[in-house]
Amino acid sequence: MKKKTASRSTTKPLVSIMMGSKSDWPVMKTGADILDEFKIGYEARVLSAHRTPDDCAAYVKALAGRGVQAVIAGAGSAAHLPGVVASLTTLPVLGVPLAATPLAGFDSLMAIVQMPKGIPVATFAVGAPGAGNAALFAVALLALQDKKIAGRLDAFRKRQAKRVLETTLP
Amino acid sequence: MKKKTASRSTTKPLVSIMMGSKSDWPVMKTGADILDEFKIGYEARVLSAHRTPDDCAAYVKALAGRGVQAVIAGAGSAAHLPGVVASLTTLPVLGVPLAATPLAGFDSLMAIVQMPKGIPVATFAVGAPGAGNAALFAVALLALQDKKIAGRLDAFRKRQAKRVLETTLP
Amino acid sequence: MKKKTASRSTTKPLVSIMMGSKSDWPVMKTGADILDEFKIGYEARVLSAHRTPDDCAAYVKALAGRGVQAVIAGAGSAAHLPGVVASLTTLPVLGVPLAATPLAGFDSLMAIVQMPKGIPVATFAVGAPGAGNAALFAVALLALQDKKIAGRLDAFRKRQAKRVLETTLP
Amino acid sequence: MKKKTASRSTTKPLVSIMMGSKSDWPVMKTGADILDEFKIGYEARVLSAHRTPDDCAAYVKALAGRGVQAVIAGAGSAAHLPGVVASLTTLPVLGVPLAATPLAGFDSLMAIVQMPKGIPVATFAVGAPGAGNAALFAVALLALQDKKIAGRLDAFRKRQAKRVLETTLP
Amino acid sequence: MKKKTASRSTTKPLVSIMMGSKSDWPVMKTGADILDEFKIGYEARVLSAHRTPDDCAAYVKALAGRGVQAVIAGAGSAAHLPGVVASLTTLPVLGVPLAATPLAGFDSLMAIVQMPKGIPVATFAVGAPGAGNAALFAVALLALQDKKIAGRLDAFRKRQAKRVLETTLP
Amino acid sequence: MKKKTASRSTTKPLVSIMMGSKSDWPVMKTGADILDEFKIGYEARVLSAHRTPDDCAAYVKALAGRGVQAVIAGAGSAAHLPGVVASLTTLPVLGVPLAATPLAGFDSLMAIVQMPKGIPVATFAVGAPGAGNAALFAVALLALQDKKIAGRLDAFRKRQAKRVLETTLP
Amino acid sequence: MKKKTASRSTTKPLVSIMMGSKSDWPVMKTGADILDEFKIGYEARVLSAHRTPDDCAAYVKALAGRGVQAVIAGAGSAAHLPGVVASLTTLPVLGVPLAATPLAGFDSLMAIVQMPKGIPVATFAVGAPGAGNAALFAVALLALQDKKIAGRLDAFRKRQAKRVLETTLP
Amino acid sequence: MKKKTASRSTTKPLVSIMMGSKSDWPVMKTGADILDEFKIGYEARVLSAHRTPDDCAAYVKALAGRGVQAVIAGAGSAAHLPGVVASLTTLPVLGVPLAATPLAGFDSLMAIVQMPKGIPVATFAVGAPGAGNAALFAVALLALQDKKIAGRLDAFRKRQAKRVLETTLP
Repeated sequence: MKKKTASRSTTKPLVSIMMGSKSDWPVMKTGADILDEFKIGYEARVLSAHRTPDDCAAYVKALAGRGVQAVIAGAGSAAHLPGVVASLTTLPVLGVPLAATPLAGFDSLMAIVQMPKGIPVATFAVGAPGAGNAALFAVALLALQDKKIAGRLDAFRKRQAKRVLETTLP
Repeated sequence: MKKKTASRSTTKPLVSIMMGSKSDWPVMKTGADILDEFKIGYEARVLSAHRTPDDCAAYVKALAGRGVQAVIAGAGSAAHLPGVVASLTTLPVLGVPLAATPLAGFDSLMAIVQMPKGIPVATFAVGAPGAGNAALFAVALLALQDKKIAGRLDAFRKRQAKRVLETTLP
Repeated sequence: MKKKTASRSTTKPLVSIMMGSKSDWPVMKTGADILDEFKIGYEARVLSAHRTPDDCAAYVKALAGRGVQAVIAGAGSAAHLPGVVASLTTLPVLGVPLAATPLAGFDSLMAIVQMPKGIPVATFAVGAPGAGNAALFAVALLALQDKKIAGRLDAFRKRQAKRVLETTLP
Repeated sequence: MKKKTASRSTTKPLVSIMMGSKSDWPVMKTGADILDEFKIGYEARVLSAHRTPDDCAAYVKALAGRGVQAVIAGAGSAAHLPGVVASLTTLPVLGVPLAATPLAGFDSLMAIVQMPKGIPVATFAVGAPGAGNAALFAVALLALQDKKIAGRLDAFRKRQAKRVLETTLP
Repeated sequence: MKKKTASRSTTKPLVSIMMGSKSDWPVMKTGADILDEFKIGYEARVLSAHRTPDDCAAYVKALAGRGVQAVIAGAGSAAHLPGVVASLTTLPVLGVPLAATPLAGFDSLMAIVQMPKGIPVATFAVGAPGAGNAALFAVALLALQDKKIAGRLDAFRKRQAKRVLETTLP
Repeated sequence: MKKKTASRSTTKPLVSIMMGSKSDWPVMKTGADILDEFKIGYEARVLSAHRTPDDCAAYVKALAGRGVQAVIAGAGSAAHLPGVVASLTTLPVLGVPLAATPLAGFDSLMAIVQMPKGIPVATFAVGAPGAGNAALFAVALLALQDKKIAGRLDAFRKRQAKRVLETTLP
Repeated sequence: MKKKTASRSTTKPLVSIMMGSKSDWPVMKTGADILDEFKIGYEARVLSAHRTPDDCAAYVKALAGRGVQAVIAGAGSAAHLPGVVASLTTLPVLGVPLAATPLAGFDSLMAIVQMPKGIPVATFAVGAPGAGNAALFAVALLALQDKKIAGRLDAFRKRQAKRVLETTLP
Repeated sequence: MKKKTASRSTTKPLVSIMMGSKSDWPVMKTGADILDEFKIGYEARVLSAHRTPDDCAAYVKALAGRGVQAVIAGAGSAAHLPGVVASLTTLPVLGVPLAATPLAGFDSLMAIVQMPKGIPVATFAVGAPGAGNAALFAVALLALQDKKIAGRLDAFRKRQAKRVLETTLP
């Protein structure tokens, strides 16, 4: 892996957010914002399974050694990034299908969720809801080992419920 | 929750495998067998989000307190079990769509993977490959906290690769 | 269920219109307007099967005792609200799939209509036509017991036919 | 409508089960058996919206006057029977899509559930689970007016839950 | 059939263009314009299979006696109009699926093209191309009996080919 | 076009039944049997748009001159035969999608029904029901010019209705 | 083939880019621009498999003799152009499905990729990414015979990777 | 890449046939048989993009240097093999989607054909027809450089046409 500008990161990343193109960022940011809200360090990186396979492999293979605990990978079209990442690490990999073509994300969903037995990818909904839920799932993983994060997750769920219960209709 | 026969379990379950019907067991067993192979305790339970909502809720709410670390929930048709489980616990929930209708599992996939933002369900492939991968993903989660499991996962990956490399064609 | 602001209701609600988010209201209002047109009391409530499962359960379990005769539940994405409501009451539950994701309501349709045997949900079309038809179906249910409503339904059908017959093309 | 052999009926039918072809009966019988279980009178009739439009219309228009309270209509392919029935009566019409072609019931589902606003058809799952649930929904409708049926529905739900809770896995 | 304003017609209609709603006209007009171009008399009528079943039946049953040779019927959602028309006449019926819902015309296509054996509906593409091609097909039918129309169809094909061959790219 | 064995034909064919492969015959025969029933001459031919384009073109271009009035073309997979035939004649072309691949006829349906504006193909249901209905539609076309065929079509419809009305359920 | 204006071409075309309509050009130009970038001669032609079958056949049959090495054919709706071209030449044919209807390119994809055995069409993604990749694939074909093109392809891949690696996120 | 048994190969392979599992061989063999028929050397290898990423990469990167001219890669489920291969070589890569799950090959088709711009994969039909056509396409590529192969391809096309033309129907 050649030297390159760190894309966007916090000091001690526990989660890596990967995507194949800068144009995926507005959707994937939904997940980054949730990690920010939970004060969980992460780094966001643009790397393509197809256009930069060797750099992608080098980056992924180094993640576990750097203390990263989970990878969130978003991809559109024939979305191979999450599966390729999962083939290169035993860390939990969370896949987010993006709606990037006329087929409306249905293509990327098929290409992520239908991973054959042996290399798992945890898949979430198409687009921003999926990016957000992948981040919340990463929080749930980390909460298994960290009581402070677990406490924040409980509080998040309560705030979320409260917002629903306080809704009024016109 | 009334007293009832434990469906199938090991002494110290770290994973709960839930399904709505006994007919789902042959597929979900693919995951149970993987947990057995990794010497990870689990319990398998038949509980329906639709037909036994209160018992299901009582069971799920008690899981975290009993030391369970992840739930694998398999469901067919309009598959609500994984989402309902996820609404009742902050444990990681892994959903497995089952092909139980003429719509070939496409219905259950939609009903699991498209969870709206706020309550995540990690979704895997339709049927046995998904059940197996959900179990492997649970292994990966537990490996974050347990070096012995992490070691077994590395060894599993190597054996799996070896089997591919040794394949001969007629 | 904690005390909370009634979302929107008439004095004697015979129908409950439920939805998971305020953003569903513009579509679900199509049904509310029809109930208004038929002078049928209803209440509209935002409650989420996923984000507020306990409040949702408490609300639904109380409906029959309060004299409500039918529930219209609208939901998008992996739309569990109608099925969850149906699991908690024996009242007729009418489900309306909403188009809330890039998958265009196909996801919510699958998640509502394909309910497994045992807990029925009557499903209607995706979006506003479905919300309207669910309300008209509730009218038909109530008309079985109330001749005045039956009369209004006959009149509605005639007006509706008349509007078609009077259409002119440019 | 010409004189013709009653297809299959009980003495005081509250529900009409319609289908376009005798080959639909094995699936539709799932619903008839549930009505039998609830001791609810019904009649089952083969009439085609396409091949016998006038007889079908005459039969449907007479239903309300004969005391029938709901129609369950099953159809495959481009399934028009439920919608055609609904256009001819203000009784609640419950549609059951049947898987009769290589398109696996997806065609009949589209042709039933997507009814345009104005004439509602309550739609259930493709095939036998849908036929069963349509019957259970008819039970729920009738339970609104008949405490004995309501009692049987409560008991049915409890038995159904008990069967789930007593399930054991091998 | 009650007296009503003729929707739009020429003096001697050989083709009837039917649709369920005025909002279908901008698409169906594509077909009307082609009939105009071929100097073939037609009438365009708004009649709904669902909202005006009796008027629709009366209108269709009278068509053959009035000298009409083919019916073009456009419909969206659970599109029953073409099939209902075909059940009431032995004239050739040409169905045009319209994209009127979030399901993008896929629903109406299924509801028209998958007619079960016995009552045929000739189906064309979703939307304006289908409306145009249904009209061209009606022209081809009439050309079998009328050499002048056959001559115009040959000329149309040649003009159409010429336009393609003269295309230049920037 | 080289000399070749006539595939199957009657003395004065009014209809040509084309298909790309002998394996399509069992389905297409459904249509041939209907033409036999109506005493309408036809010829059945195996010719492939892809594998024998020139022979196919020569055959189709000669049809109108030989007195053929309509072509029924069945095809599976990326089903081009009906559209290719329609591009080479102004005769009415009736397309029958065949279920020949794991995609269950959905592929052939798309490849036939979605013809762009300019060259129409009348499309029928996937498989045998579509082959039968294409033949019944050809009958309806011919009935416009031949009172005897029209009479047989009326009689067919009556027999068909009678069979439905005489159905009994066990 | 009658005399006609060359649509758009370079001096020594190695690739023919065909499309059925001028409206396809903005998408197909994505491929042309790539061939320009690789300094590979091409010609772009509007010819319709349906509206100009004979001119299309004459043009395609002459391609190999003129030194053209590959054909890129883009088409929407029931997209027959690539398959028709492939039936008329043994040159490699690259098909690009275009999203031209409410069915979002799904129809054209089915009509191109599902070619039956015997006449191959290499299919690429729906729309501009597919047009670009078809051109890159043509480059790869030509690179097998031309070291200069092979060198440019290596350089293109490196530039492409570099652009990904230099991406920064806001 | 460790030493391993060559899976199946001829002396001078011009084509590599790759697949992720031995169970894919019966379908992929359809392509191998065609290469045999054309006397084109090939090797068939089982290597998994997911389970053996490093061995797969090493194998693919060496192909061009060994004189291989094209890769045929078959894969089912979330089929990443063809795209991963294409990311590692500039050789033409031909992808064959396999029907390996309840989703009937629709998943693998999406995962192969929808490759994003930059790394092309030429995609063929699901299953054996696609495997056969990928091989025929490889033949067409090689025919550009080898007149003997070109001659065999012409002869193949003629034999194929002859078989169609000689078909008789019972």
